[in-house]
Parts: sequence; structure tokens; C-alpha cells
Amino acid sequence: MDPDVIPLYKGVNECKIGTGGTQDDTKTLIMDGTDDTYVDQNDFGSNFIRMRLTDGVRELQTVIRDKSTPRNDFIFYADRLIRLVVEEGLNKLPYRKCDVVTPTGQVYEGLRYEKGNCGVSIVRSGEAMEQGLRDCCRSIRIGKILIQSDDDTHDARVVYANLPKDINQRKVLLMYPIMCTGNTVAKALEILQMNNVKEENIILLNLFCTPQSANQLVTKFPGMTILTTEVHPVAPGHFGQKYFGTD
Amino acid sequence: MDPDVIPLYKGVNECKIGTGGTQDDTKTLIMDGTDDTYVDQNDFGSNFIRMRLTDGVRELQTVIRDKSTPRNDFIFYADRLIRLVVEEGLNKLPYRKCDVVTPTGQVYEGLRYEKGNCGVSIVRSGEAMEQGLRDCCRSIRIGKILIQSDDDTHDARVVYANLPKDINQRKVLLMYPIMCTGNTVAKALEILQMNNVKEENIILLNLFCTPQSANQLVTKFPGMTILTTEVHPVAPGHFGQKYFGTD
Amino acid sequence: MDPDVIPLYKGVNECKIGTGGTQDDTKTLIMDGTDDTYVDQNDFGSNFIRMRLTDGVRELQTVIRDKSTPRNDFIFYADRLIRLVVEEGLNKLPYRKCDVVTPTGQVYEGLRYEKGNCGVSIVRSGEAMEQGLRDCCRSIRIGKILIQSDDDTHDARVVYANLPKDINQRKVLLMYPIMCTGNTVAKALEILQMNNVKEENIILLNLFCTPQSANQLVTKFPGMTILTTEVHPVAPGHFGQKYFGTD
Amino acid sequence: MDPDVIPLYKGVNECKIGTGGTQDDTKTLIMDGTDDTYVDQNDFGSNFIRMRLTDGVRELQTVIRDKSTPRNDFIFYADRLIRLVVEEGLNKLPYRKCDVVTPTGQVYEGLRYEKGNCGVSIVRSGEAMEQGLRDCCRSIRIGKILIQSDDDTHDARVVYANLPKDINQRKVLLMYPIMCTGNTVAKALEILQMNNVKEENIILLNLFCTPQSANQLVTKFPGMTILTTEVHPVAPGHFGQKYFGTD
Repeated sequence: MDPDVIPLYKGVNECKIGTGGTQDDTKTLIMDGTDDTYVDQNDFGSNFIRMRLTDGVRELQTVIRDKSTPRNDFIFYADRLIRLVVEEGLNKLPYRKCDVVTPTGQVYEGLRYEKGNCGVSIVRSGEAMEQGLRDCCRSIRIGKILIQSDDDTHDARVVYANLPKDINQRKVLLMYPIMCTGNTVAKALEILQMNNVKEENIILLNLFCTPQSANQLVTKFPGMTILTTEVHPVAPGHFGQKYFGTD
Repeated sequence: MDPDVIPLYKGVNECKIGTGGTQDDTKTLIMDGTDDTYVDQNDFGSNFIRMRLTDGVRELQTVIRDKSTPRNDFIFYADRLIRLVVEEGLNKLPYRKCDVVTPTGQVYEGLRYEKGNCGVSIVRSGEAMEQGLRDCCRSIRIGKILIQSDDDTHDARVVYANLPKDINQRKVLLMYPIMCTGNTVAKALEILQMNNVKEENIILLNLFCTPQSANQLVTKFPGMTILTTEVHPVAPGHFGQKYFGTD
Repeated sequence: MDPDVIPLYKGVNECKIGTGGTQDDTKTLIMDGTDDTYVDQNDFGSNFIRMRLTDGVRELQTVIRDKSTPRNDFIFYADRLIRLVVEEGLNKLPYRKCDVVTPTGQVYEGLRYEKGNCGVSIVRSGEAMEQGLRDCCRSIRIGKILIQSDDDTHDARVVYANLPKDINQRKVLLMYPIMCTGNTVAKALEILQMNNVKEENIILLNLFCTPQSANQLVTKFPGMTILTTEVHPVAPGHFGQKYFGTD
Repeated sequence: MDPDVIPLYKGVNECKIGTGGTQDDTKTLIMDGTDDTYVDQNDFGSNFIRMRLTDGVRELQTVIRDKSTPRNDFIFYADRLIRLVVEEGLNKLPYRKCDVVTPTGQVYEGLRYEKGNCGVSIVRSGEAMEQGLRDCCRSIRIGKILIQSDDDTHDARVVYANLPKDINQRKVLLMYPIMCTGNTVAKALEILQMNNVKEENIILLNLFCTPQSANQLVTKFPGMTILTTEVHPVAPGHFGQKYFGTD
């Protein structure tokens, strides 16, 4: 299951703490037929966008993947990668032409960002991306969705959603950094669609995803834009736990 | 009810979005017999600490209270007040004497902070305090608790808790900025106690609370330290919604 | 001499790099008759303000003093202490009463900060305080003064000043973290006075100072407010070099 | 002249405050034969790199150019553009292959950044880029150079340099956001070369430059890498003054 599908809380004695992402399952699930020199060659269509893989981005990915990275550094490097993804995501929003006057009295033909956007983070790992979003959009509205899965049936369901009231009139930057199966995001999409948000208005900001999750999402939600830095059979499922120190 | 007691999510059609804190209830509940020139004279015991009320703190409180404050400014001023409360809370943690050697070879008799602390935020408004905590304790572990109330019975219950595994061996900085009744924090305390955290190891970081909530908490959890900037019959229940823009 | 009295640059071949603060001189100068258990008991008058010495502040001082502190941590802890001094300095600025209306329609008797302030940093170590000032006053104007001393005569002189034009109508938060002799700040005061800034409008934000420097400044500029966290015969003269990594 | 060529300070009575960049001169100097729809088609060789011009970058440029932008926003948007340039500059540094082990025990073929870099800002506007550099390289060493020009002869000369001692063994990220003539950077290059820094080890991080300045620098220092976001006959010479509020 995805790292943040939280087991249903059934009562006081059963309170599961910090379960996010059972590494062994993840490993079993996604490692068939792959090896360390995996090269991403999949085509997931035109709405699926990979960030330009520069040396700098590769270094950030490396530090995040490395199990020996201290939390201190992990957070710093993760925040950098998140800001780059956010900046790239903002590029996908609509802009309009806008002439401005400079201090020396000249007209400069520029661009302005259209208002009416918001962020939505999927608890818990998606919340690690909130500060990065705020670093680029100071007072953007940020909603939140919490998905739970039933211990017995493994059904994912939304238990908590706190979204801007007029979200159906906004572009939505959906934040979720690590995708193994894609089920969590798929469930979040349901709740957004129930709130009348159109697929075309959703940009998923992701750091690492598996081909499986990419495939599920582009198939089910072809209108959504997906932005990621890496497609790889192994996603770093420890991300949220390491970021927040709840491992 | 407290601003972040989230109505139970019962199904797709009933999804309540952004309900946190019905102002009218709050008003009715707490305004009896008070007026605008309320002076805080209550004594809640030695574990209940009010921040020194400087002009600077008063200004921060004013900007946060003012309904005409733009979100942009609201977030900036709230973050400043949060950092001050966090710094004050860190003062309540244990320190030990520690001699260090300076670059000129002298011994300086200093203090060091004992390791073994963590933060726990109560969703959603408590999350607004996470960045402030991180600004002062770069890689502190941060857990999270989500409380829900049933629409019919108004019973609060914990639906989600993600806490550091060894939390019973840590000092806990519990974060919750606005308290009206104190019920939400009381419920969070239950979950901490189930995880074997002692009251004596908990410091509640709060910005604004009512006398009612202060009273409940010092009575029920006399060992816990509570830190606030203001006790006032009216707590700014819009805090979380304005901070995150989900109003 | 003070850590940032920069030797006069006389020509290309003599370019002195990173000289700020010769530790040995400092040591000789200020260590006579003192020991490690120095207790600050001096009275420098009512305009000389020591920050409340909490355990938290003492820890920050300790980390900054400790020669084994990595630069990474040094910067983080220095920034925290700077922010606390800045917040305390802002308390010394004038406020006026101001009633605001809350979201629930009540009037709240608050305070507002009077506009018309600015920051001035003394190059180089004073610049380390600029970000902390900005963290509390987002868009405050920040001027700068560079003082040089002649290699032969040791006369300090101002080589560069970039100040807000209307500085004579502003309160000035003068930033300089470490004072050994006080000569550098005394020289900066001259340039401020030439620009018609009144002593009464200047608040010096300092982290560490010697009794000697405190004495000089309160004697020469009795109207100025001085804020520090510690008076001690040994000031950590390596501060600027360690902060910027030019040691 | 360039915005930060500071007139020589000759004595107390002549102290020039906040002179940085006389807009009229700038205008006269660079506007011949250009118009608002200027299209950058110059080829300045392979070491001259323009950032990818996305809608997002264009928006940041627009906000910075716009004279009606409040300082508050100006700083926020400038910081964003600076961080993007810094991240791009870091890509130009050397990396080496580095295998790391992930938490699930797999080997991941990554990249690591070679140590041994530093930043150097040219006072004053270059200092606006220091925080952005620090946001991406937490504890990078940051030196500083101050250039003055003689009021009569207009000769630029270095008055102050504070550089890491081993700078000749480091890659240098030279920071200067706005270039009109290129003279200031050319003078800074002299001081770096006197300190035995090789051109090949210098990466100039710039936001806006004129064709004239680009031309001078690639001609004089062909080994240096230059990174900018825009080549345009009019550079926003008010940048430093607006950023620091000394206009």
C-alpha cells in the first residue's frame, strides 16, 4: 500500500502509531524484474511531466534515497527538491500577458499569474510539501485530505477533508511526494471530484513514483497533470516518516 | 466546541469541508458576563504560565485578532508569535551545565539542552505551529493527532495518531494554538497517556485560551505545563482557517 | 580593536583578506584580571538593557562560544539568538493604542507599532543580523556602514555608508553583534549623527559586549538604547568570520 | 556606471548616502536603438548561459521590473528568482558518481556534489543574493567585495575584500544581480585573480544584464561561466535600492 494509507483507528487499545508505509510489502510489490540500473523509458502521455534531470536534481534525489543521511540534512535537501517541483508546477498554471511600467518609465511586456489557485496536501507525507509551496506562494490557501484503509478489507476511504469552500473554481496543486500504487492519490481525486473540481484543474506535485502508480493515474484521470522528478520501480517509502521523525 | 473538533466524516454526500470552529457557538458559549475590557486575573496554578506581555507581543495578538488583517500579514505575525512561544517552551525543557572551550582557549560555563524531545501537533490548527517549532529545533521529531467529534453525540474521539515510537521516553511539546473548551487538548492528552507519556513530560504550547479551557486542563492534568500568551473569554477561533485559507 | 575594523585597503598588492578580528590582540586586551566565573554586576544606566537570561538564551550563548560547534549549527543558533534580540528591540519602539474588530464582531483593545523605523548594519558582522531583522520586519529598510582603520595610525574611519534618505525621521535599529572596545559602534554613531539621527532614536542591537565597550558607549552616547544578551570581559570575536566562513 | 559602483567617500561632509545607480545615466547609456519589444538574439559563447525562460521565470522578472510592486512583494519574488538562479548555478559545479544504499537495502546510483565551493557577493546588490545561496547551501562560506569609483576620474577600485583564505582552491559563485556596463564585475574579477582564483573556477550568478556588459565579460574573461535570466538593453538598476529600501 502507499506510505500514507493509514490503518483505520478502531478504538483506544488498537491505536496504531506511525505505521506509514510497510517497507517489506513495498519491496515485494514493486521489485519484480527490476534491477538497480533501471532506466525510465515509459511513456505516460503528454500530461505526465518529468522534471529536467540535472546533476543538481540527481544529487537531491541521492541524498533523499541514502539511508545514512541524517534527518537534519534529509529535511534540508527534501525542501530544496520540493521547492523546485513547486516552481515547475507553478509554470503549469495559467498566465496572462501584462505590460508593466519600469522605474525608468519604460513599458515591459511581462506575464502575470492568474489568481484562483490552492494547494491540497494528502496527510501525512504530503504535508511535508506545504512549506515549500508557501515559500513560493506566500499566502496560498492550503487544504488537506486524510485517507484511511481498513485493516481487514484494505479499502481506502477518506476520513477527513478540509478544503477551501470555493475549490471548484480553483486550480488545485495536489501534493503527495511518494507514490507506490497510486491508490491514495486516486482516492484523493475522488474527494476532489465530489467537490466538483475538474481533472483539468488538478496538478499533482510528486517527487518519486513507480511506473505502476503513474500508469494507474494517467489511465484513470487522463485530464490531470502529473509532475514528478523520478519514475523508478522503488519509491523511497520512508520519506514521510523520516521527514517528520516518526520512524 | 473547539475550533478543530472535526465533524465525523460519514460518507461521500455528507463530506463536511472546512467546518473547523463555528464562530456563533463559540460566541454564545463564552461571552456570558464578559466585556471588552476583560482583565485576566485568574490563578491557574504554578504549571500554568503566561508569556511576558510586552508591547511587541500585544501587537502580534492585535494583528491576529483583527478581522481586517490580510492573510499574508496574518501568517507572518502568527509565525512570529508562535516562534516566541516555542522559544519560551524550550526554556521549560531540562538543561544541564556544560563547560565549553572558546576559540581563544578559555573555558566558558554554559548550558546544554538535553536530547529526547519531540513535538506533537493537533490537526489542523496545531499544524500551523510546526514550522515555528522547526525554526527553533531544526530536526525535532513531530507527531500528529487528529480528533473528530460525532455529529449527533458530540463525543470527541481520536481518529488518527502518528507519533514517534519512543514517545514515552521523550518530553512532548504539544501544539494547539486556540482553546475554547479545552476538550480537544483533553482528548489528545488521553492518547498521549495511553502511549505512556507522563503529564510531567508534556508542555502545551498555546497562543490564546479561555479561562474555561485553562480551568479544565489544570484540573484534569495538573502535572502538565501550559504556556499561553493570553487568557481571554473570547479566543480567536478563526485562527486555523485563516492561517490555512480554508475559510 | 573590534572584530570588524577593517585594515585600510591601500592598493592591489596589499589586499588583506579576511582579517576581521585578531584573536590574540583581543585576548591581551581584555583578559586582565578576569576569570572564567565572571559575574556581570556592572550598572551601565537605564538605557543599557540586558536580555532576560533564560536557560534557552544561555544555551544559545554556549553554542556560539563553543569552538567545536560546526558552522552549520553555529549559524542556526546565532540566527535564533539574533531573532530574540530583534524581538526585544522591537519592544523598545513606540506603540500606540489601537482598537480592532474581531471576526466575531467584538472590539479588542490592542497595540500597533508606529511606522518609520529602519535597520542599519555595520559591515561585516552586523550583516549577520540582517536576516533576523527581516524575519521579524519583513520589508524594513536596511542601510549599511563600513568602517576602516588605518594600518599605521589605527584611526577608524567610515569608508562607505548606504542609508535610507529620510533616516533622520526614523528610529534606527543599529546592528552589531560583538563589541570589544566599542570604537566601531562609536564611529558608526558619528556617521548617524552627521545624518541628523538623534541618539534617542537609536537602539543598538548587540549579542555580546565587554564592560569596556559598554562603558564607552553609555558615556559617549547616553541617549542611545543598548540591548545585549551578555556583558563579559571576553567577547566571541570570531563571530563574523565563523558566521560567514571567512576564517 | 553599474548600480553599485559607490562614489568614493572623501570625508565626513561629503558622505553620499544611497547613491547606488543613477537611473538617468543608465537610461541614456543603454537605450540607443532599442525598443520595448527587444528580442535577445545575441550569442555570447558557450560559457554564457541563459536560464530556461518559463512562464514562471517571466512572471518573476515582471514583478521585479514593475515600478508599482510593493517592497514586500519585490523581496519575496526576487528571493524566488535568486533561488532558481542559485540552483541552476549549483548544476554547473562538479559532481561525482556515488552509490548509496536505500533503507530497503538497495543500491542507488546517484551523484554527489564535490566540496570546496564558496560564494562571493559584490556589495551592495550582490548581498541580496546571499540568503538565497544559503537557502540552497546551508553553511557555504560567503566572502564579499566592495568596489568604489572615484568621483572625478570614475576609476573603479576595490576598497574592501573579505574572502575565504583558501579561495584559490575553491569554485567561486560570484553574486551580482544587475549589470549595466559590466565594469563592477570586471573589477571584482581582478581581485579574485590577484587571489589566484582561475577564471575556470568562477560562476557568475546574475539576474539581469545588458548586451554590453555580457559582451565585455565574455571577451575579457572567456573562461568564466556566466548565468543570467535575461539579457536586455535596460537592466533594472533600482534592484539593490528597492531590495534594501535605501531608495
